[in-house]
Amino acid sequence: ELATRLDKLHPADIAYILEALPLDERLEVWDLVKAERDGEILLEVSDAVRESLIETMDQAELVAAAEQLDADELADLAPDLPKQVMEDVYLGLDAEAREQLRAAMSYPEDSVGALMDFDMVTVREDVSLEAVLRYLRRFDELPDHTDLLFVIDRKERLRGVLPVGRLLINDPDVVVSDIMLTEHLTLEPGDSADEAAMAFERYDLVSAPVVDSHHRLLGRLTVASVLDFVRESSEAELLGQAGLKEEEDIFAPIVDSVKNRWRWLAINLVTAFIASRVIGAFEGSIQKLVALAALMPIVAGIGGNSGNQTITMIVRAIAMGQVAAEHGKRLFRKEIGVALFNGIVWGGLLGLAAILLYRDIKLGMVLTAAMTLNLLLAAFMGVAIPMTLMRFGKDPAVGSSVLITAVTDSGGFLIFLGLATLILL
Amino acid sequence: ELATRLDKLHPADIAYILEALPLDERLEVWDLVKAERDGEILLEVSDAVRESLIETMDQAELVAAAEQLDADELADLAPDLPKQVMEDVYLGLDAEAREQLRAAMSYPEDSVGALMDFDMVTVREDVSLEAVLRYLRRFDELPDHTDLLFVIDRKERLRGVLPVGRLLINDPDVVVSDIMLTEHLTLEPGDSADEAAMAFERYDLVSAPVVDSHHRLLGRLTVASVLDFVRESSEAELLGQAGLKEEEDIFAPIVDSVKNRWRWLAINLVTAFIASRVIGAFEGSIQKLVALAALMPIVAGIGGNSGNQTITMIVRAIAMGQVAAEHGKRLFRKEIGVALFNGIVWGGLLGLAAILLYRDIKLGMVLTAAMTLNLLLAAFMGVAIPMTLMRFGKDPAVGSSVLITAVTDSGGFLIFLGLATLILL
Ligand SMILES: [Mg+2]
Ligand SMILES: [Mg+2]
Ligand SMILES: [Mg+2]
Ligand SMILES: [Mg+2]
Ligand SMILES: [Mg+2]
Ligand SMILES: [Mg+2]
Ligand SMILES: [Mg+2]
Ligand SMILES: [Mg+2]
Ligand SMILES: [Mg+2]
Ligand SMILES: [Mg+2]
Ligand SMILES: [Mg+2]
Ligand SMILES: [Mg+2]
Ligand SMILES: [Mg+2]
Repeated sequence: ELATRLDKLHPADIAYILEALPLDERLEVWDLVKAERDGEILLEVSDAVRESLIETMDQAELVAAAEQLDADELADLAPDLPKQVMEDVYLGLDAEAREQLRAAMSYPEDSVGALMDFDMVTVREDVSLEAVLRYLRRFDELPDHTDLLFVIDRKERLRGVLPVGRLLINDPDVVVSDIMLTEHLTLEPGDSADEAAMAFERYDLVSAPVVDSHHRLLGRLTVASVLDFVRESSEAELLGQAGLKEEEDIFAPIVDSVKNRWRWLAINLVTAFIASRVIGAFEGSIQKLVALAALMPIVAGIGGNSGNQTITMIVRAIAMGQVAAEHGKRLFRKEIGVALFNGIVWGGLLGLAAILLYRDIKLGMVLTAAMTLNLLLAAFMGVAIPMTLMRFGKDPAVGSSVLITAVTDSGGFLIFLGLATLILL
Repeated sequence: ELATRLDKLHPADIAYILEALPLDERLEVWDLVKAERDGEILLEVSDAVRESLIETMDQAELVAAAEQLDADELADLAPDLPKQVMEDVYLGLDAEAREQLRAAMSYPEDSVGALMDFDMVTVREDVSLEAVLRYLRRFDELPDHTDLLFVIDRKERLRGVLPVGRLLINDPDVVVSDIMLTEHLTLEPGDSADEAAMAFERYDLVSAPVVDSHHRLLGRLTVASVLDFVRESSEAELLGQAGLKEEEDIFAPIVDSVKNRWRWLAINLVTAFIASRVIGAFEGSIQKLVALAALMPIVAGIGGNSGNQTITMIVRAIAMGQVAAEHGKRLFRKEIGVALFNGIVWGGLLGLAAILLYRDIKLGMVLTAAMTLNLLLAAFMGVAIPMTLMRFGKDPAVGSSVLITAVTDSGGFLIFLGLATLILL
C-alpha cells in the first residue's frame, strides 16, 4: 500500500522523502517507485542522493529512465549517468531532440543555455487571435509556465511575444502583430544565469525567450528554473563560506564527507601554520612577558571578525551590481572610519581590561594600538580583496573569507607581538 | 534629458540606479523622478536606501506617493513611513482597501499573509468557458501572474482553480466545474512563507490562492513575491553569518555601519576574552615551554573550521526539512567518524611538523591528540547545537557559527594546554 501512496505523490515530494531517508530505507522506497517515474524523480533529488540511487540501477533501468525525459532534462542528468547509458539514449533520439540535447549540454552550468527548455508555443504575427485560440484548442495541454506565446517568422526568427493576458482581453478579430510586445526581455544562451535571474526578479517575469545570434528562437527560460537556480546558488554560497564543496547527503558514508571537506581544512592548516610561525618568531618576547600569549588571540580574532563583516558587505554589494571600480576610494575611506571607531572603542575597552588584569599600563596601550592597527588592516583588505578579484573578473565570493582570516590572523600576531617587542621589552 | 530617460525606465531599474549612487548624486536623481512614480520606486529600493530617500521627502510628498499603491504594497512600505503619513493615507482609503491594509499588516513578516496580494480574477463554477472568455475581454488588463482563475461560490468560498491553460485548450461550451482543479495548493495567511516558497519551488507554481479558516478567498501568493522572499532570506542568512544585522547602503555614513555591526563584535569580544582567560590560566606552562604559545592557535583554528563545516551542513539539511530529531544518533556517529579521520590525518601531519621543528616527540604527540580531541568536540557541538535549537523551535541558522567558534576556541586552548601541562611538564 506504500507503493500506491507513492504513485499519487508529485515526483518532487518523492524526491524529498528519498533525501530524508537513511540509505537502506531510501533504497527500499526507491524499489517501490514505478519504473516509468524514475527519470522525473532522479531530476528532482539532490546530486548526492542521485548518485546513491544511480549506483543501484543497471544499464537497462537507467536507459529506460532517461528515455522518459525531455532533451533539456536529459542534459541536466547527463553528467551523473554512465557514458554507455547516454550513448544508448542518444541513439534513440530523433534529429531535433539530438540537436537540443547537444545544444543544452554545450553551455556552461551558470549560463542561460543550461537552464532553458524547449517546450513552448509559437504563433505567426499575421493571424487573428481567433485563429490563435482555435490553434491552442488543438493542444492536449499547454507547456507549464505558458504566459507568453512566441511570435516567429518563417525563418524561426523571433518577432515579438504575445502575453496570454493580452490574448484573453482583446477581441478575437484583432491580429497578433497589433498587440504583441516587441520590447520584452530576450536572452541568449551564453548570457549569465545570474543576470537573467536578476532580470526575472526585477521585472517579475514568468518566462522569457532565448534566441541565437541570428535572433532565431531556440527555447525559453521559465521562472521555475530561475527559482531553482537562485536557491541553488545561494545554498552553494552558504556552503562555500564554510569550505564545503557541495551539499552533502547527510546519510552519506564518512569517506564522501571527508572528500567534500578536506580542501578547506588543508588550506586552513597552511594558514594556521604560517600564523604559528609568526608567533614562533617572537618566542623570546613571550618568554619574557607571558601575558602576550594570552592576549594575542584577541587581537587576531577581532580583526578576523571585523574583516569578515567588511568583506561580506562588499561581496554582497558587488553581487547586486552596486559597486563600480571607481567607488573604491570612497569605500576605503568609510571602512577605515568604521575600523578606527571600533579600534578606539573596543580596543580601548580591552586595553583597560588588560591594565586591570596585569597591572601594566603600557601593555594595555600596546593592546589597544595593536587592535586598532589590525582592524585597519582588516578594513583595508576587506575592501581590497573583493575589489581586486572583481577587477580581474573573478567571483569575489569564492575564498575571500579564508583570505581575510589568514591576513588578520598572521597580521594580528605580527602587529601585537612586534609592537610589544619594540615598546615593552 | 536625464529626466526623460528615467521616465522610460522600469521602476526596478530606477531603484537599482539609486542604490548604486552615492548619497548626493542619489538625491539629485531622485529629484528628477516624476512624483507619481515615487511610490513604486520606494517599494523596490533596499531598506537602507529607502530610508535615505524618505528622509528628504515632506509629509505631502509621502502621502501622494503612498496613495498610488495597492493595499498590499502600502503594508510593505508602512513600517518606514512616518505615523502621520499612514494616518492620512488610511483616511483616504475605501472600506475594502482599509480592510486589506489592516489584514496585510496584521501578519508577521515571514508569513504568507505578509506576502500575498489582492489582485486576482474570480469566476463562478456553473458558467461556460465561453462566458469566462467574454468576461475576461471586459478587462483592460489582467493582474500580473494570472495563470489561475479562482472559482468561488456566492459566499466567496474557494471551490477550485481554473488554470488559464485549461481555459485555452478546452471547448468554449465546457462548464468551469468540469475542468477546474480542486486539489491545487491552497495557503492560509498564517502559513510560513518559507514553507510556501518551498512548495512553489517543488511544484513549479506561478500563483496560489490564500484562504481564511472558513475557506473564503482572501488573496493570492505569486511567484514574484516568492522569488523576492527567497532572495531576501538567503541574503539575510549570508549577512547574518558575518554578524551583520542587515544589508547596508554601502554609501551610508559611518555611524550607520557601526550600528549594523557592533552586536557581533561585542559578542566576539566576550568570547575572545574568555578564551584569553583560559590561556591565562596556563601562563606557567607557557613560560616553561614557549612552543605551546605558537602551536595553540592551530588547535583552536582547525577545530573552529571543522565545527563550522559540520554545523553548516546540518543547518542546511534542517532548513530543507531533511533532518528529524530521531536522526541525531546517526549524525553524531558520522560526524565523529569524520572528526576522528581528520584528527588522525591532519593532526598527525602537524604533529610531525612540530616534532621536526621543535625536536620534541612528546610535544608532537600532544599536538596530534589535542587536535583530534578538539575536532571531536567540534563534531559533537556541530551536531548538538543545531539539533538542540531545532528541538526548542528556534532557528538553527542564527548564531550557531558564533557559538561553535567560541566553544572550539576556548575548548581548543583548554585541551591543548591542559594535555601539555599533564604530560610534558
Ligand atoms: Mg524503482
Ligand atoms: Mg542539484
Ligand atoms: Mg538544463
Ligand atoms: Mg520541460
Ligand atoms: Mg483540446
Ligand atoms: Mg520582483
Ligand atoms: Mg579564528
Ligand atoms: Mg521625485
Ligand atoms: Mg527589503
Ligand atoms: Mg506585503
Ligand atoms: Mg499588486
Ligand atoms: Mg478589453
Ligand atoms: Mg522547481
